[in-house]
Amino acid sequence: MAEPDAPERPDRLYLDDFHVGQHFTSATHLIDSEEIKAFARQFDPQPFHLDEETARSSVFGGLAASGWHTAAISMRLQVESGLPIAGGMIGIGGEISWPRPTRPGDVLRVVSEIKEVTRSRSRPDRGMVRVRSETHNQRDEVVQILDAKLLVPGRATTAPG
Amino acid sequence: MAEPDAPERPDRLYLDDFHVGQHFTSATHLIDSEEIKAFARQFDPQPFHLDEETARSSVFGGLAASGWHTAAISMRLQVESGLPIAGGMIGIGGEISWPRPTRPGDVLRVVSEIKEVTRSRSRPDRGMVRVRSETHNQRDEVVQILDAKLLVPGRATTAPG
Repeated sequence: MAEPDAPERPDRLYLDDFHVGQHFTSATHLIDSEEIKAFARQFDPQPFHLDEETARSSVFGGLAASGWHTAAISMRLQVESGLPIAGGMIGIGGEISWPRPTRPGDVLRVVSEIKEVTRSRSRPDRGMVRVRSETHNQRDEVVQILDAKLLVPGRATTAPG
Repeated sequence: MAEPDAPERPDRLYLDDFHVGQHFTSATHLIDSEEIKAFARQFDPQPFHLDEETARSSVFGGLAASGWHTAAISMRLQVESGLPIAGGMIGIGGEISWPRPTRPGDVLRVVSEIKEVTRSRSRPDRGMVRVRSETHNQRDEVVQILDAKLLVPGRATTAPG
């Protein structure tokens, strides 16, 4: 399941390269209020994501990013600097939670741990890697937990056929 | 937990208004390839979300939207026309999966079913509603399943104190 046209990073990992307990840490992203509002206008137009004044009297007590914005930023961090998976980062699904809101001025980074590596029985040239990714802010508080199942190709030579 | 500054829709629902088995259907959103690529450039810059040619030889077999893009569009549909929750739509977390990719030209809509309604013991003026939301395309195929826990306020008068 090689991706002949995908730009190859030298350190791209295949199923065979993953093992339980491995850790990966992404680069960081500083989020500002304009970004929070722009995402919200497009995808989550609710007062507490759009306006400081209204947000103060909401359950968030101040401007907060949409959880889906936190998820999208976390994905970018993973793709660019977090998990260098051969063939790309392809999620089947997972569990997501937002223990606390992302705020303007937060500096986010994603810390991942490999929880499970399973080769497919029907398609031994690929498998599933379960990754728990925490998105942390600059105070090391967790703003998102994503326990995701990723589709990962094996090295071509390891496929028994 | 009234939201005095939130624009009030006449049909906003409180915890007391929800019951297991209720259904809600959102309006629709037509997604095109420019939109898919724009989201991918910003949040999920992988070849199969950015370029038709490269996508054809990927596991997707053609241009596919980022799962997080499907999630973000689904959120907008929910906020604007799907689930009219008093105080807004505030997710604590949930389980998400993408059984098949969203493609250019897909017309998405979100179909939701209330699965659980629980009043908080410590804060009886609010509670949790568990909603299973399926995002369907125009062929009624499911492109996303989100089983989400939402924070929902009770009517002020129902709080026992």
